[in-house]
Amino acid sequence: MIAILKPGAAQAQIDSLKEWLIAQGLDVHISVGKYQTIVGLVGNTSKIDIDLLSGLEIVESVKRISDPFKNANRKFHPDDTIVDCGGAKVGGGNFAMIAGPCSVESEEQILEVARAVKAAGATMLRGGAFKPRTSPYDFQGLKADGIELLLEAKRETGLPIVTEIMNANHLPLFEDVDVIQVGARNMQNFELLRELGRTRKPILLKRGLANTLKELLMSAEYIMAGGNENIIFFFRDTATSEIYTRNTLDVSAIPMLHELSHLPVVADPSHATGLSRLVKPMALAAAAAGADGLMIEVHSNPAKALCDGPQSLTPEQYADVAAAVARLRETL
Amino acid sequence: MIAILKPGAAQAQIDSLKEWLIAQGLDVHISVGKYQTIVGLVGNTSKIDIDLLSGLEIVESVKRISDPFKNANRKFHPDDTIVDCGGAKVGGGNFAMIAGPCSVESEEQILEVARAVKAAGATMLRGGAFKPRTSPYDFQGLKADGIELLLEAKRETGLPIVTEIMNANHLPLFEDVDVIQVGARNMQNFELLRELGRTRKPILLKRGLANTLKELLMSAEYIMAGGNENIIFFFRDTATSEIYTRNTLDVSAIPMLHELSHLPVVADPSHATGLSRLVKPMALAAAAAGADGLMIEVHSNPAKALCDGPQSLTPEQYADVAAAVARLRETL
Amino acid sequence: MIAILKPGAAQAQIDSLKEWLIAQGLDVHISVGKYQTIVGLVGNTSKIDIDLLSGLEIVESVKRISDPFKNANRKFHPDDTIVDCGGAKVGGGNFAMIAGPCSVESEEQILEVARAVKAAGATMLRGGAFKPRTSPYDFQGLKADGIELLLEAKRETGLPIVTEIMNANHLPLFEDVDVIQVGARNMQNFELLRELGRTRKPILLKRGLANTLKELLMSAEYIMAGGNENIIFFFRDTATSEIYTRNTLDVSAIPMLHELSHLPVVADPSHATGLSRLVKPMALAAAAAGADGLMIEVHSNPAKALCDGPQSLTPEQYADVAAAVARLRETL
Amino acid sequence: MIAILKPGAAQAQIDSLKEWLIAQGLDVHISVGKYQTIVGLVGNTSKIDIDLLSGLEIVESVKRISDPFKNANRKFHPDDTIVDCGGAKVGGGNFAMIAGPCSVESEEQILEVARAVKAAGATMLRGGAFKPRTSPYDFQGLKADGIELLLEAKRETGLPIVTEIMNANHLPLFEDVDVIQVGARNMQNFELLRELGRTRKPILLKRGLANTLKELLMSAEYIMAGGNENIIFFFRDTATSEIYTRNTLDVSAIPMLHELSHLPVVADPSHATGLSRLVKPMALAAAAAGADGLMIEVHSNPAKALCDGPQSLTPEQYADVAAAVARLRETL
Repeated sequence: MIAILKPGAAQAQIDSLKEWLIAQGLDVHISVGKYQTIVGLVGNTSKIDIDLLSGLEIVESVKRISDPFKNANRKFHPDDTIVDCGGAKVGGGNFAMIAGPCSVESEEQILEVARAVKAAGATMLRGGAFKPRTSPYDFQGLKADGIELLLEAKRETGLPIVTEIMNANHLPLFEDVDVIQVGARNMQNFELLRELGRTRKPILLKRGLANTLKELLMSAEYIMAGGNENIIFFFRDTATSEIYTRNTLDVSAIPMLHELSHLPVVADPSHATGLSRLVKPMALAAAAAGADGLMIEVHSNPAKALCDGPQSLTPEQYADVAAAVARLRETL
Repeated sequence: MIAILKPGAAQAQIDSLKEWLIAQGLDVHISVGKYQTIVGLVGNTSKIDIDLLSGLEIVESVKRISDPFKNANRKFHPDDTIVDCGGAKVGGGNFAMIAGPCSVESEEQILEVARAVKAAGATMLRGGAFKPRTSPYDFQGLKADGIELLLEAKRETGLPIVTEIMNANHLPLFEDVDVIQVGARNMQNFELLRELGRTRKPILLKRGLANTLKELLMSAEYIMAGGNENIIFFFRDTATSEIYTRNTLDVSAIPMLHELSHLPVVADPSHATGLSRLVKPMALAAAAAGADGLMIEVHSNPAKALCDGPQSLTPEQYADVAAAVARLRETL
Repeated sequence: MIAILKPGAAQAQIDSLKEWLIAQGLDVHISVGKYQTIVGLVGNTSKIDIDLLSGLEIVESVKRISDPFKNANRKFHPDDTIVDCGGAKVGGGNFAMIAGPCSVESEEQILEVARAVKAAGATMLRGGAFKPRTSPYDFQGLKADGIELLLEAKRETGLPIVTEIMNANHLPLFEDVDVIQVGARNMQNFELLRELGRTRKPILLKRGLANTLKELLMSAEYIMAGGNENIIFFFRDTATSEIYTRNTLDVSAIPMLHELSHLPVVADPSHATGLSRLVKPMALAAAAAGADGLMIEVHSNPAKALCDGPQSLTPEQYADVAAAVARLRETL
Repeated sequence: MIAILKPGAAQAQIDSLKEWLIAQGLDVHISVGKYQTIVGLVGNTSKIDIDLLSGLEIVESVKRISDPFKNANRKFHPDDTIVDCGGAKVGGGNFAMIAGPCSVESEEQILEVARAVKAAGATMLRGGAFKPRTSPYDFQGLKADGIELLLEAKRETGLPIVTEIMNANHLPLFEDVDVIQVGARNMQNFELLRELGRTRKPILLKRGLANTLKELLMSAEYIMAGGNENIIFFFRDTATSEIYTRNTLDVSAIPMLHELSHLPVVADPSHATGLSRLVKPMALAAAAAGADGLMIEVHSNPAKALCDGPQSLTPEQYADVAAAVARLRETL
């Protein structure tokens, strides 16, 4: 950690700061320059409140050099984490093919999709039961009934299931769910993250549209601080001002997250652009960049889907994408 | 609502779409062009699921022309809404001066600040009891004890109090709180919004860093759909790639929200830039642009504040800003 | 084109607008609703000045439905354009491997790199002679001497050469250059684009950091309006607020540009993230998404490069990336 | 300047780096930590090429602590610069009211606007002769004839004139122009900036939509490095993903630029939002935040303006805004 002092800082103030920092157990190195003085801090700086230090009258700015995340940090955990999702492994060379409809709509629909994606090589089934929608007037999901239908599809196909949680009070309903998804808008719902840290369920943690990788890592840290280390990063995109594509698939986040953390990374090419005809090139791009899995929306009849139809693939299109991804992964 | 059809759409498909739309109670106007066909829909289009329509095979894109928000829309409610916050009115010419520390830290601290800001002209006291922090290792607030201390400050000074909620399960603790704040990271925590819609408490709804005004209006709609119309918009900024200022205070949001909605708008010049020396010019700018109030962080000893110290004003600095804002509002 | 009229528009004004539009040769369809009136315009709307129409007193907003770009539009030119760059073809299945140093530094340096990248499979040599640098105090390139050295490398290796232009007055120096690059900061230097439209040189047109695809297409239109159809789109990234990676490689731009336009698309994985260790995954991702080529920075001694060292590969690393890309392209 | 070394850096390499840095005339302070080693550099670091240093094998990252801009820096020039624009002063308490049409369209039009804005209190006349337009098919300005008409308006009203340059080759046409504007898209057209540095004309330098304040300061540095210190910063906005307002007026840039630099800052409330009804609140906000002037678009008949009509004020509206701004400035 580095603190830059203001030009006019009095020697007495600098001395008192130095004393206080040493009392916190840090090594302090001071470089005095003509226009500024730099204080280098070495040791366990994670206990120093950066806001407190920045707020001191003589301090111009503070820069953290070491990472504020510990449990998710690859530096302290060099090997890839492999998350076991009801039998389907993700990370450390294990690739997840998660597929299913945006929303669970009916028994017939979810069973049909589940059978089709299993046949095409999917390793997990995903379907929305609780749906976060921008408008209170849009379809909000089948809720508890939706989870029941997913469990039925699991019994029939053997595919582990993934579904999104929106409220920690609903946790009892997720007892038999294999992977709990945290949506982009809840990435910094810290109360929810903390509750999920008390479970041992695999968590698919989605990056918010305008959140940095560091914020994503800190949200993982909230869950891990509670003892739950079964986290899979999940992301689609970053907000830009582009209009043709809904958003931008931030492919560079994949190798960067792998460098910063030992946790697996799954990409969502369906939501990334919001256009089904771009799902295949984006899926291939994410796999080529080293993703540990792909979540792709599949619907037997995308034109009739109750939400997000335009970005869903038909089962036939999914089979084509899955085969292309498999070929590409063999080559790499 | 406008639907653009794909170049090759068959007449039979167009006819069947038209029939279906008419069955929804809409007037349908079709303009056939060489490269595209445009379908204009007039009537109550709020019941049409835009995703469903977009997903139809023959549809290239759909554009909503009328606003998807109703309760918050000025078109249907031309007069300014005035929200009564425990006696302090906001909107329709009533200006709110909300002040207080980022976090409630101790009885002594909150009483000292409360007395000081009241003397300087504040109309409400704000203090954080539950604190959303990016890192699980940072100070998370005094929680229930913090609310107790705020209530004590209210009893002593008579100032109505504002504090942030992070979890709907905590609502019983907010019984005597005058205004409940929803933080930027919870702006799209729809479960929380829905619960707040069941209360009749004034809600200070903060715009998320990367959320559009339309999304903010739709979040208000979630609360209003439950019958709670006591909403005050609150915003600080929009994420940009600027580095000198933490973020950009989006002053243009003030007149734009006033045009779109009848609800009052309060600005937060403290968090906007994260620098106390910019609070005064930003407060004046927001007032000049027509804000209905300002929330400003004040701490008796900013250098020792447990969070967000760098952006807090001392009580003396706050009195100076409050006086300048009052002069400016008289002039306008 | 769609014009939305204001609620109170008088019939006489609407009639006079209709008349004027018909006089422009357009078909006009008017849908009158309770809260708004929609005017649909069908025909050659590219001659209508959208600003003029928007500015009319009775008009609330105008939406262009058809694309404002013509020459670059795939709708009017369905086949892929293949650009011949001094013998190396790009587009329509022809893949460009462009490589070389950020700056030409010396005869020895450029010859060494040229030989090395040719051996590794590069099809074109790129080197900067005129360098746009944010600071006037940074190295600005060898200028005319740099071009001379590139031509020498071309004579020795046979590789066509690519280099950036910053000023149309320098065009005579580019007589023997095979491909002229327009940098990101000059993407909307319309005076320069117009001059390049008068040449018949292949132009590598780079997307600006905050420019939309539509703006990129319109900049191509500036060049094509002058009769030069030899354009290759080139892009690296889009500005976001991410800090770990310098920027985000917008891989989705590749299939989207292919859909909108017949011109080839080359990606720049080196500048995208600014980190050499991310070049390989980003190169593979871009190739998987369907890019028509890759430009990769290679330097014999990246640590000593006069600019952009951190993102340059050594010749050995480049050979490894080139081989992996070739394998991946065979698979697809 | 701070360099962070990689964990495994060998002592010999560290020593050799230290030696080299000392040879560059710097004081070097090294702090060795368990996970990293920090090298603090004090002295004239502006000569160190940050890319070169970053590229060294043992260096993980480099952070510049001192500002890379010198001539524009308030630290080295504490007093406000006052720029004399043909008699109208800007900065150091002198407020500029620049007004006029987006484009010069005809003799009658420019004379009418010039007289009207002068009567309303404008101190300079602005009109576009060379117009940067996104589409090559849109009106590009009257060019040399437009400048002639501006000069005629200057002779008649005595108002100094401001107009935009797009090509350094046009400089001879600007001989009698009082202030030369550099548009947002040319902010990093370094060749143009360098040419303008050779003149002594006041330059109104506009911030690009996605450029940081630091980049704006570095562009000023390009002009100042040539000896021209007559620079006025000019800005409208920052790109965001907001859709209701075209862009966001970054009001916080005003006090921040004043802190970083001694040069005056003028705001453009007309282009900021693109909506004439928001010009007044935005003008007041900019003045309240401490701007040194405002540029506002005025057209006698906005509905018929050849470009940017929707954001132009009528002369009557301008007189109203000018009076409100004057009252507000008196109060502050």
